[in-house]
Amino acid sequence: MEGRLKPMDAEQLRENAHKMVDFIADYYKNIENFPVLSQVEPGYLRTLLPDSAPNHPESLQDVLDDFQAKILPGVTHWQSPDYFAYFPSNSSIAGFLGEMLSAGINMVGFSWITSPAATELEMIVLDWLAKVIKLPDDFLSTGQGGGVIQGTASEAVLVVLLAARDKVLRRVGKNALGKLVVYSSDQTHSALQKACQIGGIHPENCRVLKTDSSTEYALSPELLNEAISHDIAIGLIPFFLCATVGTTSSTAVDPLLGLGKITKSNGIWLHVDAAYAGSACICPEFRHYIDGVEEADSFNMNAHKWFLTNFDCSALWVKDRGALIQSLSTNPEFLKNKASQGNMVVDYKDWQIPLGRRFRSLKLWMVLRLYGLENLQSYIRNHIELAKHFEELVSQDPRFKVVTPRKFSLVCFRLLPPHSNEECANKLNHDLLDTVNSTGRIFISHTVLSGNYILRFAVGAPLTEERHINAAWKVIQEEATALLRTL
Amino acid sequence: MEGRLKPMDAEQLRENAHKMVDFIADYYKNIENFPVLSQVEPGYLRTLLPDSAPNHPESLQDVLDDFQAKILPGVTHWQSPDYFAYFPSNSSIAGFLGEMLSAGINMVGFSWITSPAATELEMIVLDWLAKVIKLPDDFLSTGQGGGVIQGTASEAVLVVLLAARDKVLRRVGKNALGKLVVYSSDQTHSALQKACQIGGIHPENCRVLKTDSSTEYALSPELLNEAISHDIAIGLIPFFLCATVGTTSSTAVDPLLGLGKITKSNGIWLHVDAAYAGSACICPEFRHYIDGVEEADSFNMNAHKWFLTNFDCSALWVKDRGALIQSLSTNPEFLKNKASQGNMVVDYKDWQIPLGRRFRSLKLWMVLRLYGLENLQSYIRNHIELAKHFEELVSQDPRFKVVTPRKFSLVCFRLLPPHSNEECANKLNHDLLDTVNSTGRIFISHTVLSGNYILRFAVGAPLTEERHINAAWKVIQEEATALLRTL
Repeated sequence: MEGRLKPMDAEQLRENAHKMVDFIADYYKNIENFPVLSQVEPGYLRTLLPDSAPNHPESLQDVLDDFQAKILPGVTHWQSPDYFAYFPSNSSIAGFLGEMLSAGINMVGFSWITSPAATELEMIVLDWLAKVIKLPDDFLSTGQGGGVIQGTASEAVLVVLLAARDKVLRRVGKNALGKLVVYSSDQTHSALQKACQIGGIHPENCRVLKTDSSTEYALSPELLNEAISHDIAIGLIPFFLCATVGTTSSTAVDPLLGLGKITKSNGIWLHVDAAYAGSACICPEFRHYIDGVEEADSFNMNAHKWFLTNFDCSALWVKDRGALIQSLSTNPEFLKNKASQGNMVVDYKDWQIPLGRRFRSLKLWMVLRLYGLENLQSYIRNHIELAKHFEELVSQDPRFKVVTPRKFSLVCFRLLPPHSNEECANKLNHDLLDTVNSTGRIFISHTVLSGNYILRFAVGAPLTEERHINAAWKVIQEEATALLRTL
Repeated sequence: MEGRLKPMDAEQLRENAHKMVDFIADYYKNIENFPVLSQVEPGYLRTLLPDSAPNHPESLQDVLDDFQAKILPGVTHWQSPDYFAYFPSNSSIAGFLGEMLSAGINMVGFSWITSPAATELEMIVLDWLAKVIKLPDDFLSTGQGGGVIQGTASEAVLVVLLAARDKVLRRVGKNALGKLVVYSSDQTHSALQKACQIGGIHPENCRVLKTDSSTEYALSPELLNEAISHDIAIGLIPFFLCATVGTTSSTAVDPLLGLGKITKSNGIWLHVDAAYAGSACICPEFRHYIDGVEEADSFNMNAHKWFLTNFDCSALWVKDRGALIQSLSTNPEFLKNKASQGNMVVDYKDWQIPLGRRFRSLKLWMVLRLYGLENLQSYIRNHIELAKHFEELVSQDPRFKVVTPRKFSLVCFRLLPPHSNEECANKLNHDLLDTVNSTGRIFISHTVLSGNYILRFAVGAPLTEERHINAAWKVIQEEATALLRTL
């Protein structure tokens, strides 16, 4: 990149991007050789990099060398076949190619006119995906609803919370904000709490309803009903329920049928967060987990989790797009144009927090076309089989216990304390997590259920095969053996 | 992609990604042959694509053929050298390579531990960029402040508005939300209005202060002072000012020195939106436009506009990161880890709306290293020279008028009505915009200043050279001639 700056010369682009392709392909060839969880100490990078940006250009090779030597040791490898933490965040060839193409075109599709194809492909592909998981027709863009790609499930729940908030405030007056009540279970993702903080919902009006093992950590419709009745009785205004299909802690499934009846009869907006488990619903045998979605006002699943679409791609559908638009639209002069003013088009800027947006539907389109539905179903089923296999391995070792019945590809388990000493059980599992992750050979995460510290083993990385499951279990067993010996 | 699905096979990735590189490089080779502004009609794509996703896999070649035949006609080419609308949204080789690498690694850096390098590189590179534009040290991550990459300027102004809102509400009580007052000028970006809608600021408490040609559409400190005094007198609580350096309509520059004194003495959060013009401040001769930034609480510039960093990359700096974190943090069990609990690290999830985040600092790092500061300065200066050249061309044609003095790379101008018939002037310029953009040869946009419809010519695409400016001006002249003949 010497001589006069040609920042977008086609032939220089070709030459350098081919180099980058090989660099990335080699990364995947070697991915099993890295510690899955980065083992660096806080602040490690500042000592390795200069204090300021260079005045003169450096070569791509220098930058790639630095990336290899200085950045990669600080990377936690989410695409490693030995990654079992949190939930998966799939990369795939199709998803990656879609990201390349989108970054290559680099257009900003805030309004239809700024790139009609970006808006229209998004509408079409989200209709495709809605049909694949058999969402009711009300969620299709051909009626009053429609789908939109948000960055994350956090943004999805925020925008529908705002739509619901403003819808009720238009009726009761904006000074009633302090009376609005939001419902969820104690298993609901923290994104809801954050959305409430942002939207100005009073913290004391956020009802976090208790769950326990008797419902496998699903929200009880009876509890919801009681809470709503009580709130109405004291003059508050129930307006929003976030139900979850596949909670983060343990993939619990809130009963949409029962909950939906209650929200419907009380005029409460029902949002379904199926960020992780929504992908499984492309298989007929798992579709029943979202039975009752007919009563929902909005539904969200993250194609970037377990659907081979590179981060970020969070699909949100609503039945009443008008409510979203009323909350989020602005109409400055500099963006006015014939198509928008004539209400002939969708302008996705009014369905989301940011103004600008990338051409994210490309990667979802490419995943659906390059793989096809049958392959995608097999992909999901394979991970669920692998998780079943892991569950069996855990069950066969009497030192361990599977904590909640596995539904999808997450196994929640724990090491039992020796001599049934329950007091040290939490510390024991905490220590096991630490030692296992410190090996760098696998990465798992944790949660707490009913006060118990639990280990989470989430299958779902595209490269994971049965041999990785077996090897992972061996690491966990070995570290458990070593730990138990120290007690 | 036939046979058993291998969604992340390194050699298949290599083969397909090389194909994609050539496809994208060829796109740039041919970019001048496309109509800049897509000429499709609303709904064009639905008739061209199937109603549902395929069951079986299709080939990459089929997808690329469809992209070429069906998607590209609906794309508005933001990277075309003939693109002069809105503001630029730069793509560059370095930025594109950074996007590739980030999508290749595909990690999700919400907490430090989920990929330490992603957090640490972002802190370091935003410190680099802060030094390049000579922000006060208070904004560096080595003190109480720091930088963070947001998706867009809309998210940047939203998160600081929330931080400021919650800071004042902690003092006066959350029931005072209805008393909070936000200030801006009538030239401020609509992102502020949207942030206020989201954050529950009452619309009647959003003071949109009038500007006119006497200040070249900059906000007058006197007007601000009067508005604040009046609001305090009637019991309201002024808490936030959004000042702009380089407004969207006409690149007006609000006087930070004068405004900062007022916000400081009234305890008001001062946010500086330099989304577009911030890039120019890397040149010493343009740095004076942000003199007074010392009194600001937050500062934002979009590296994805005019700084060769592919969308999205909006750099936000704050002096008091604690205020951001207090508004936006959550601490669910499943994300707890030693480094976070020990306050040893930055967890960027608490500086932004979403939880998940891409490794966006990579592309900014690559832009700074592969180009170097001197080249980047020349890049900015070249566009400003080109805009000057366009301004001269307009001035030399007595049928046209430059409307406000050009400061950066945007020229605001209009066609004068024949016989000084001011009544038809707005329609005339509206029609000129339409006919010019309908040629597909260039894309320009518009605004309204003091009630007058104005044409905007924004230089800034990486491929634009003097010949493109001359050709664009010829198109405008020709269409004007034709239009005037019809009157």
